Amino acid sequence: MTSIDLNADLGEGFGRWELTDDEQLLSVVTSANVACGFHAGDAATMRRVCEQAAERGVRIGAQVSYRDLAGFGRRAMDVPPDELAAEVAYQIGALEVFARAAGTRVSYVKPHGALYNRVVHDGEQAGAVVDGVLLADATLPVLGLPGSRLLDLAAKAGLPTVTEAFADRAYTDGGTLVPRGQEGAVVTDPDTVVERSLGLARDGVVTAHSGTRIEVRARSLCLHGDTPGAVELARRVRERLTASGILVAAFA
Amino acid sequence: MTSIDLNADLGEGFGRWELTDDEQLLSVVTSANVACGFHAGDAATMRRVCEQAAERGVRIGAQVSYRDLAGFGRRAMDVPPDELAAEVAYQIGALEVFARAAGTRVSYVKPHGALYNRVVHDGEQAGAVVDGVLLADATLPVLGLPGSRLLDLAAKAGLPTVTEAFADRAYTDGGTLVPRGQEGAVVTDPDTVVERSLGLARDGVVTAHSGTRIEVRARSLCLHGDTPGAVELARRVRERLTASGILVAAFA
Amino acid sequence: MTSIDLNADLGEGFGRWELTDDEQLLSVVTSANVACGFHAGDAATMRRVCEQAAERGVRIGAQVSYRDLAGFGRRAMDVPPDELAAEVAYQIGALEVFARAAGTRVSYVKPHGALYNRVVHDGEQAGAVVDGVLLADATLPVLGLPGSRLLDLAAKAGLPTVTEAFADRAYTDGGTLVPRGQEGAVVTDPDTVVERSLGLARDGVVTAHSGTRIEVRARSLCLHGDTPGAVELARRVRERLTASGILVAAFA
Amino acid sequence: MTSIDLNADLGEGFGRWELTDDEQLLSVVTSANVACGFHAGDAATMRRVCEQAAERGVRIGAQVSYRDLAGFGRRAMDVPPDELAAEVAYQIGALEVFARAAGTRVSYVKPHGALYNRVVHDGEQAGAVVDGVLLADATLPVLGLPGSRLLDLAAKAGLPTVTEAFADRAYTDGGTLVPRGQEGAVVTDPDTVVERSLGLARDGVVTAHSGTRIEVRARSLCLHGDTPGAVELARRVRERLTASGILVAAFA
Repeated sequence: MTSIDLNADLGEGFGRWELTDDEQLLSVVTSANVACGFHAGDAATMRRVCEQAAERGVRIGAQVSYRDLAGFGRRAMDVPPDELAAEVAYQIGALEVFARAAGTRVSYVKPHGALYNRVVHDGEQAGAVVDGVLLADATLPVLGLPGSRLLDLAAKAGLPTVTEAFADRAYTDGGTLVPRGQEGAVVTDPDTVVERSLGLARDGVVTAHSGTRIEVRARSLCLHGDTPGAVELARRVRERLTASGILVAAFA
Repeated sequence: MTSIDLNADLGEGFGRWELTDDEQLLSVVTSANVACGFHAGDAATMRRVCEQAAERGVRIGAQVSYRDLAGFGRRAMDVPPDELAAEVAYQIGALEVFARAAGTRVSYVKPHGALYNRVVHDGEQAGAVVDGVLLADATLPVLGLPGSRLLDLAAKAGLPTVTEAFADRAYTDGGTLVPRGQEGAVVTDPDTVVERSLGLARDGVVTAHSGTRIEVRARSLCLHGDTPGAVELARRVRERLTASGILVAAFA
Repeated sequence: MTSIDLNADLGEGFGRWELTDDEQLLSVVTSANVACGFHAGDAATMRRVCEQAAERGVRIGAQVSYRDLAGFGRRAMDVPPDELAAEVAYQIGALEVFARAAGTRVSYVKPHGALYNRVVHDGEQAGAVVDGVLLADATLPVLGLPGSRLLDLAAKAGLPTVTEAFADRAYTDGGTLVPRGQEGAVVTDPDTVVERSLGLARDGVVTAHSGTRIEVRARSLCLHGDTPGAVELARRVRERLTASGILVAAFA
Repeated sequence: MTSIDLNADLGEGFGRWELTDDEQLLSVVTSANVACGFHAGDAATMRRVCEQAAERGVRIGAQVSYRDLAGFGRRAMDVPPDELAAEVAYQIGALEVFARAAGTRVSYVKPHGALYNRVVHDGEQAGAVVDGVLLADATLPVLGLPGSRLLDLAAKAGLPTVTEAFADRAYTDGGTLVPRGQEGAVVTDPDTVVERSLGLARDGVVTAHSGTRIEVRARSLCLHGDTPGAVELARRVRERLTASGILVAAFA
């Protein structure tokens, strides 16, 4: 039976501010990328989200980021590798406390925002993220883009790697994401997103920006949770997958 | 054989800024209170100090604080208990990563600065610190003032407690510290500090501010590391204790 | 003709996070308490709100706070007076740039959250806020609670003072606010809030928590903008006041 | 008579942490680049340094930076132009309060660290810095590297520009700085630095890394204040210049 993991960013508020509808998203996804305090995610929120995820049997991942609350981790930063590695480990460790207290564990790591984009091609920072994961726990899977430097280096370092795809992002013929800011980079029509999700999960194919069908093999689909209608769309994706006989479950 | 632990605050720089002479202090103390990023202590510094402490066999403790880099954790804050508990756990977890990576563990918790003073008498915040420790690890000893609410509540919660004394602070006849800011609150003469250290370690007595000899039983002496001459004084204290037949060793 | 000022907190987002519906609130209030970056309010938001306020002829005030993004300025802090004074001045200066760039000026100062509550009775911190205002501009009015230490000390220092009242907060017979957390501290029924607004603006009276009618003379009414329905309620208050022949206008 | 300005970074501590010997440096330099809180410089420090500078007749400049306390502003960041412009204006405004309170004004702007390096060649960020200065005060001089995008764009926008040179940095034959990290990038021999200072100030020439004499015309020399011996070296530079008949004075 074909199986797919659904992941989303959660706990992305900070203090008084809220962003993601954590409780609703936790009823849809199988893996929760929990913000660890560097781009979002105060300690009380991290605790709460870990408790809620554990209750629902949703896997907890550390969504590590540049230290940049003001920019929500969306501004690339030239952080020296040793600092970046230590910061990644720091975030994983902080989240681990709350995962354990909730009776589970941090079970993967996914970089956030500008760091996510940077480690697709930047070997130095990708290596630093890998070093940070190794510092924290040398058995932790790393979630990222197929073909990214991050997954290459993680695999070389002996870390399990998990690929993900985006049903709501346009792809180039080469299988990379069309950069945000370019026209058509984001797929906004809900029906299209649902169908692309199915294509990615069942067949490992998606229609690229050019119209060509391309192959994108991914073990997880990333759903977005910070836009109006996001939860409803996520629910529809899950229902469509399940109705098509695909098992929605956390990656092994 | 009488035995005493020597603890000091370490890793209290942040990024470009340095404060404590960590390497020198680690050659004197048996327990290192490592700053965890809330009042001081960036991730790279935490990593380095943990490695150095582990190499020298110095015990690592989490020096938890209010979130207050601008005030170095010295400004009392009315943090709601659930937030404070989560923030304490967050800091312990972050440090634990680096302790483990260095082949050891966080083996006690000591509040810093204004939080340290607050939990002497404030039951709500003391309870929150205890809750934070329990969240992180229900076997972690808590280091604090004899008679403090913190140690009372920690003991009630089943946590090991460790008492400490200050050779360079004046005591009231009741055995509490004369508040900083009052005249004579800090003992500055090095010879006097050395002798008071010996009295506290060997006999459990010290001359109070009034001139009366009082009993102060403590398992650890706190040495300060952030003033000129601090390391030299710490070294003299250790030598005097050792020369007097007292075993300087981390608490069991 | 009786005249009343309506003030509300604005620009209380930070980076990716939004809180207040600034544009809608600016169509209702006559004075905008703009967050200055210490509890909320990134620089780009401050600029935008100042531009929008200036366009609509709404007066701009500096909503100064403790440095506490994580706690949204709601946690009392024991900040030494010289630091607090400098921090208040810093915030006013930062906002002044955007007010001037928008063709207007910062024309009053109002403390936020825990600092607002603290300076009602704490003379040391109230004095520090006054010192901070004097550093920035010795002609700036200070907005606060009637009878507060802040307004007393501001007046003694020669600063103009402006009193405010809260239609949605319960009052004691002595004319002080019933502390949040006590039952009935917040008046939630919209109709009641509208009528209390009218009573305060027209007659300077309000029904206290005990049922007694008391006198509360205030030059400004504070409207809240961060709850669901807040903008709609603010609009109803303004309409009721105007329909009753009261001039809604910024204080002179 | 040939005249040269001497500038240095000041007030680069933060809260408990100190870095620059502000009082000593203020007895040597004619222009003080005061940190504004984004990479260093708490409000109380900013106030103190402005007072001390005003007392000594030293000109005050806003040393604006990326928002990055943890990295001391030394990590390049991809800040969107509108955010960067607002952040620059914010910092200038905050410092202006303390300059005015000390009886003077902010009279120039100099970017710090990674931002300084970035705006040498990055037109987008250079333009954003210029926009930020224009927001704050359209008459403020901008201090930077000759030939930088920053000075080009500032001049095009009608802002006065002031060039600076570094006696302790190696130059390429093209007149740009040899990047830190490359061998020989920093000139450490004090006598050499003193002589290079004289050559730059009197003749507008310096020996490049290759050994070739090149022309570097600058209205100001930047002295570093955050290394051991820095103040002593700065003093020697000033004495050598004065003894050679060069007028050491703030730029007009």
